[in-house]
Amino acid sequence: MAPPPAAAEQIETTTTTAIHEEDDGQVVNPWEVSAKDGGKIDYDKLIDRFGCQRLDHALIQRVEHLTSCPAHVFLRRGVFFAHRDFAEILDAYERGDNFYLYTGRGPSSEALHLGHLIPFMFTKYLQDVFKVPLVIQLTDDEKFLWKNLTVEECQRLARENAKDIIACGFDISKTFIFADFNYVGGAFYKNMVEVAKRVTYNQAVGIFGFTGEDHIGKVSFPPVQAVPSFPSSFPHLFSGKENLRCLIPCAIDQDPYFRMTRDVAPKLGYHKPALIESLFFPALQGETGKMSASDPNSAIYVTDSAKDIKNKVNKHAFSGGQDSVEKHRQLGANLEVDIPVKYLSFFLEDDAELEHIKKEYGAGRMLTGEVKQRLIQVLTELVERHRRARAAVTDEMVDAFMAVRPLPHMFG
Amino acid sequence: MAPPPAAAEQIETTTTTAIHEEDDGQVVNPWEVSAKDGGKIDYDKLIDRFGCQRLDHALIQRVEHLTSCPAHVFLRRGVFFAHRDFAEILDAYERGDNFYLYTGRGPSSEALHLGHLIPFMFTKYLQDVFKVPLVIQLTDDEKFLWKNLTVEECQRLARENAKDIIACGFDISKTFIFADFNYVGGAFYKNMVEVAKRVTYNQAVGIFGFTGEDHIGKVSFPPVQAVPSFPSSFPHLFSGKENLRCLIPCAIDQDPYFRMTRDVAPKLGYHKPALIESLFFPALQGETGKMSASDPNSAIYVTDSAKDIKNKVNKHAFSGGQDSVEKHRQLGANLEVDIPVKYLSFFLEDDAELEHIKKEYGAGRMLTGEVKQRLIQVLTELVERHRRARAAVTDEMVDAFMAVRPLPHMFG
Repeated sequence: MAPPPAAAEQIETTTTTAIHEEDDGQVVNPWEVSAKDGGKIDYDKLIDRFGCQRLDHALIQRVEHLTSCPAHVFLRRGVFFAHRDFAEILDAYERGDNFYLYTGRGPSSEALHLGHLIPFMFTKYLQDVFKVPLVIQLTDDEKFLWKNLTVEECQRLARENAKDIIACGFDISKTFIFADFNYVGGAFYKNMVEVAKRVTYNQAVGIFGFTGEDHIGKVSFPPVQAVPSFPSSFPHLFSGKENLRCLIPCAIDQDPYFRMTRDVAPKLGYHKPALIESLFFPALQGETGKMSASDPNSAIYVTDSAKDIKNKVNKHAFSGGQDSVEKHRQLGANLEVDIPVKYLSFFLEDDAELEHIKKEYGAGRMLTGEVKQRLIQVLTELVERHRRARAAVTDEMVDAFMAVRPLPHMFG
Repeated sequence: MAPPPAAAEQIETTTTTAIHEEDDGQVVNPWEVSAKDGGKIDYDKLIDRFGCQRLDHALIQRVEHLTSCPAHVFLRRGVFFAHRDFAEILDAYERGDNFYLYTGRGPSSEALHLGHLIPFMFTKYLQDVFKVPLVIQLTDDEKFLWKNLTVEECQRLARENAKDIIACGFDISKTFIFADFNYVGGAFYKNMVEVAKRVTYNQAVGIFGFTGEDHIGKVSFPPVQAVPSFPSSFPHLFSGKENLRCLIPCAIDQDPYFRMTRDVAPKLGYHKPALIESLFFPALQGETGKMSASDPNSAIYVTDSAKDIKNKVNKHAFSGGQDSVEKHRQLGANLEVDIPVKYLSFFLEDDAELEHIKKEYGAGRMLTGEVKQRLIQVLTELVERHRRARAAVTDEMVDAFMAVRPLPHMFG
């Protein structure tokens, strides 16, 4: 295929900028997220450094207009806050052109926490309102390469995680889930090699921060995460639709993979994949980065019982309230650092109630205990709903979602 | 699998020795073969540097004894001159253990030259006398990565080359031919990732001489050539035979790939693959390295006509004879540099006739023209036989050899 005119000349400006050692003191890459001096992630700086765009109100209104649906709470509240070429996706959609969604997960743990659910909850919304197909990559190979796990364990975790993903409510007639160890090969492998030929080692070091002591499996992996951005990697879905655009909802730490992908795409004759990128879901202890799988008290897991949730929120959720009731009534809560309010802003759908809580809590008329009580309700309901949905996912359903098959009704 | 005891601790001594810049002035790696100052390759130095062993007379006698067949001319004349652990293969065979053969080709050109045939002619002999299965890898992905060719062209060349390989007479009931773009995936991909996890970038640079400006496709490739050494990469052939040994006949420029493989094998619970390695077939112009695909007059191709062969040998084959007949009768030919004699020592099967020619020619009683005449006969016959065999190879036969299938009668 010939590259689209001019597009081949556009270079993602930050591709060769090292992202593992930051002059602004914060580190954000697919393997590490940490703010400067234990503070908060500065997302404005991240947007500048990565060279993506802020998702503004006008774009959100356009989504509502085009889909005739209210914007998802994650859009309204700025959880998905940055993008690349999302406007082009909407332009194309408005012209009647289709696109597909691509998201994924590295299956390194048995149970997902709430932060893991966010891209899937949002992707489900996008699939529902735009009525488009979706591919979900489970990077069991990546987890094998980066973690001390066997191939078999990574494959098992991929299937377990697939159950949680399916429980988010994806439409089986529009959704293909695949795990790399099973799916790599054929057209997908050809595209991996096409990408690998177009990225130098020095560029990979610039983007991902690899060192000479890293194994070559790490150096080999980025093309694997890149190529689901190209429709030809899924001949059973998109044969003859090589011009289809791709939209990737993900957390912003995945941006380096797709900066690389966007550099290569026009050289292979594809559209650059568009991105819509989220903040990190904060740890219970406070907003200094992503949650840690090694500390179970840093996150609410979808396997937590109602009692676990109650204990975790009451004991570990960092409060912006004052030390004493008297002081609190006088000064009010610091909403900027308060985790219960932060979590409610992700998961409490009622805008009016959230505003009310923020106003009353910020003015000191509501106490931390009351806000936590409401959060416990919201999370318990969410986790309980997920647990019921997951319990209904059988191995046969996993097989069905992961079957390499055409999706004849995937558009509309 | 647990690694065999002690084996995991043995390290190929030269693994981290850079092979792309040689202190002895000769360069031998999978992509470049050149002697010091345009002289001859010093194979003794190569054996020392690579750390392999010379294939001695006792070992050749053992092959004859174990197989009850005369040794192949390539063994008798030292064309296959070096090895790693070949004695262990013979020990195991003597105990009644089986092994399998693995060889391959990078399909970068339409027509093969005589040098390309050598490993296949020898592998056919090994298959015949040991009665063992054989896997043949066509590295179409490698050629795409290293050459300016499309994926489709590399795939086409792989099939064309497969026809030449099949024409060498391999037994379809014992032979599986595969091309990477088609076959990579599943168990093969798992093994690629297992290998890649165990080789650092610095080690790869030491072995292969990659630079930071090389694309990551090159860095990703060595595991692809490594894993056919492991029986588990072929579940349709060797399921349940993970302990099977592998013997690789190849030209010695491929040694770096298998030094790396031998380092990794015990860590994955496999035997180190054994190697039996050949000299390079000299160019018509003289013995300074491998033949060059870019100069058609440097080699005899299997597609050359009888007239081509006659012209090439008469015009281009470097002669060790003297400038004038008088001088030649007096001094005799310098057999050390004479290409017609060198070529006859590869392809003239009759030991007595070869000795006679060398004696008469070396003494000046035979002239270059007479030796060239005999060589033209031998090569024309060889090429004509190959042409007839290749013409009989249909696309259906290629499909049959490349079908992923069990080989129920592959041993004995």
